[in-house]
Amino acid sequence: MKATIITIGDEILIGQILDTNSRYLSQQLNAAGIVVCERTSIGDSAEQITQTLDRAIAQSDVVIITGGLGPTKDDITKHTLARYFASEMRYDEREAEHIRTLLARRGIAFNELNRSQAMVPTLCTVLHNAHGTAPGMWFEYEGKVVVSLPGVPFEMVHLIEDEVMPRLKKRFALRQIVHRTLITAGIAESILAERIAAWEDALPEELHLAYLPAPNIVRLRLSAYEVDGESISRTIENEFEKLHTIIPDNIVGFEDATVEQLVHRLLLERGERLAVAESCTGGRIASLFTAQAGASGYFMCGAVTYSNSSKCSVLEVDERVIEQFGAVSEQVACQMAEGIRRVSGADYGISTTGIAGPSGGTEEKPVGTVWIGISTPHRTFAVRRDCGTDRGQIISRASAYAISMLYNEIR
Amino acid sequence: MKATIITIGDEILIGQILDTNSRYLSQQLNAAGIVVCERTSIGDSAEQITQTLDRAIAQSDVVIITGGLGPTKDDITKHTLARYFASEMRYDEREAEHIRTLLARRGIAFNELNRSQAMVPTLCTVLHNAHGTAPGMWFEYEGKVVVSLPGVPFEMVHLIEDEVMPRLKKRFALRQIVHRTLITAGIAESILAERIAAWEDALPEELHLAYLPAPNIVRLRLSAYEVDGESISRTIENEFEKLHTIIPDNIVGFEDATVEQLVHRLLLERGERLAVAESCTGGRIASLFTAQAGASGYFMCGAVTYSNSSKCSVLEVDERVIEQFGAVSEQVACQMAEGIRRVSGADYGISTTGIAGPSGGTEEKPVGTVWIGISTPHRTFAVRRDCGTDRGQIISRASAYAISMLYNEIR
Repeated sequence: MKATIITIGDEILIGQILDTNSRYLSQQLNAAGIVVCERTSIGDSAEQITQTLDRAIAQSDVVIITGGLGPTKDDITKHTLARYFASEMRYDEREAEHIRTLLARRGIAFNELNRSQAMVPTLCTVLHNAHGTAPGMWFEYEGKVVVSLPGVPFEMVHLIEDEVMPRLKKRFALRQIVHRTLITAGIAESILAERIAAWEDALPEELHLAYLPAPNIVRLRLSAYEVDGESISRTIENEFEKLHTIIPDNIVGFEDATVEQLVHRLLLERGERLAVAESCTGGRIASLFTAQAGASGYFMCGAVTYSNSSKCSVLEVDERVIEQFGAVSEQVACQMAEGIRRVSGADYGISTTGIAGPSGGTEEKPVGTVWIGISTPHRTFAVRRDCGTDRGQIISRASAYAISMLYNEIR
Repeated sequence: MKATIITIGDEILIGQILDTNSRYLSQQLNAAGIVVCERTSIGDSAEQITQTLDRAIAQSDVVIITGGLGPTKDDITKHTLARYFASEMRYDEREAEHIRTLLARRGIAFNELNRSQAMVPTLCTVLHNAHGTAPGMWFEYEGKVVVSLPGVPFEMVHLIEDEVMPRLKKRFALRQIVHRTLITAGIAESILAERIAAWEDALPEELHLAYLPAPNIVRLRLSAYEVDGESISRTIENEFEKLHTIIPDNIVGFEDATVEQLVHRLLLERGERLAVAESCTGGRIASLFTAQAGASGYFMCGAVTYSNSSKCSVLEVDERVIEQFGAVSEQVACQMAEGIRRVSGADYGISTTGIAGPSGGTEEKPVGTVWIGISTPHRTFAVRRDCGTDRGQIISRASAYAISMLYNEIR
């Protein structure tokens, strides 16, 4: 069972917005056993939509389209689909009433444009959008399914969960897709590949191996497509088991989780608590943890101490230490990590202090220099990392290093 | 001049990573006057790469490919391209030396897999990757340009800036693409569209209008493709000028900037300072500001006070007020905003306190309820907002509301 994802909108093609819908849809389809063979983003053009639909329908069983369903003139998806499937349009009283109610709550009158939102192709099944004014549409065509959804992410998400996935599961006899990921640390990708070459060559044919390198970590993902889930899971377990003898010191975990998810689970399990003191990462570490549901169970507090004075007043860093060693130093990183742990009463403290650039670098401490501090009930230490040259990259890398350092320390 | 962007990797199609490369490439190509007609993501499959290349070369002048250039067996882009262009491979001494040096710095020996990274198609121009081990490749084919780059974002970014864009500008006589965005606030998209319908109908043919709705704000973008930049900019100015008489109270700004960028510029211009106290947004607001270069010029500090005790100890919120009204209340939001302003010595304080879910909601304060506080030298106030039902959505929306509230208050 194959799928193509089409996201429509000039704002995607000019790079004005980041297309997160495609990723979410990929995850959902995969989890249901549907292989995504292509994702494509095109403009608000009837010709392009038509050509892309031709290709998508030829190569896949399911086509999911998002975007272009708004009330304004630049939104042409609905009429293009109606023409594509040679369908009349009809006025849907139920959708009109729903739109009228949503608008009334915000004190807005129903107008001609809203009326056009309640027009739907007669040939489609209307997918009710409880969270917005543009309904979704489900077309059946030559044994294939074509679904059109609004581009607003949370409206799309609710329609997928409440309407599309249940209907797809009913409509098709879906098999399973299995992905399992093993996480390695402390070994470079090319060395790892060399070390496990014989293992890789001997893998059963139905398993596909992928290397996913990240700062400090290489993930090994084994995938099997459209299989019987239970027996393949055992096969994968067996293969991963063999790696225990080949790279015994480099296996960090077996889950398809980010490192912040691993820390999150560990701290919740143990009932231990975390606090974070960030300078150059500017709140990124706190927001990575707190984005996870349940973070309030261990996340005590974070401090984004950008100015030197706030490092002293909030984290009780010694002013003279800043003067002597500079704010970007081992000593300050240690005092920040210890300070936030003491002030908050948490079990663990993380700190970052560095030069995110583009200015502020010196020969001795160039842009990208970051000191990362970890404080636990047993010890406090800091490590210097070169996190690159680009501001965004430095913030991401320093955050990733800090979280994986904490994980290595506490696991 | 048209371009197609192809990102390669099963990790994209299964949703394991978010494809940020496509957005960056879209922005860069647009800024240089090259229209992106399609972006597509496909798997590590020689057949798919070949078919997609056929289409991309037929429909565009420039094709940019990222991904699949690593040292391991799942990376097949280089050999597929060599076969596509019927090119031999050769060993590049200079690249080999560079890879050897990079590895030596990390204490890793050069091995057979690294040797394969220094193999390049004879027909291509090698684009030296100073920041990584996989070189880029530039092919010329039937008057078209096909560029292959590594998928690691910062390596790709440096190659685009240092090698690809300068070469494209030399190779083609590029025209301009102009996008200008007007920001409106306090008016729903459908009402706005109705109000400006006559203006929209009378727009010059070369201008394309797009509506971009976001919490609290609708952006109107006028775009012109492959034009003479100076005269079209004047035409756009004139059109936007007319809107001043049609929606005089709803125009917030004229830039294609995020609201945090507008606040950033305003505070730097004025020499005023900001501090942030976040509960439910968990560091997101601080990280949005500090992601911008130069933020240290005004950003004093942020506090992520997740626990009640940290609200009291760090922000000096009155414990009895939390007991009486609850942590998610107008009173606590005001005390948090005032507290962070006082503690940090900043001119402005922002606070958020709310229920990000999925648990913790009550009938009176359901999941999504967020109080946002603003404190200035003139007044302190808080506003309650319903920020949706999904945790990620609630964090994003509450952050967007808070930043736009501050902007409206200080501009």
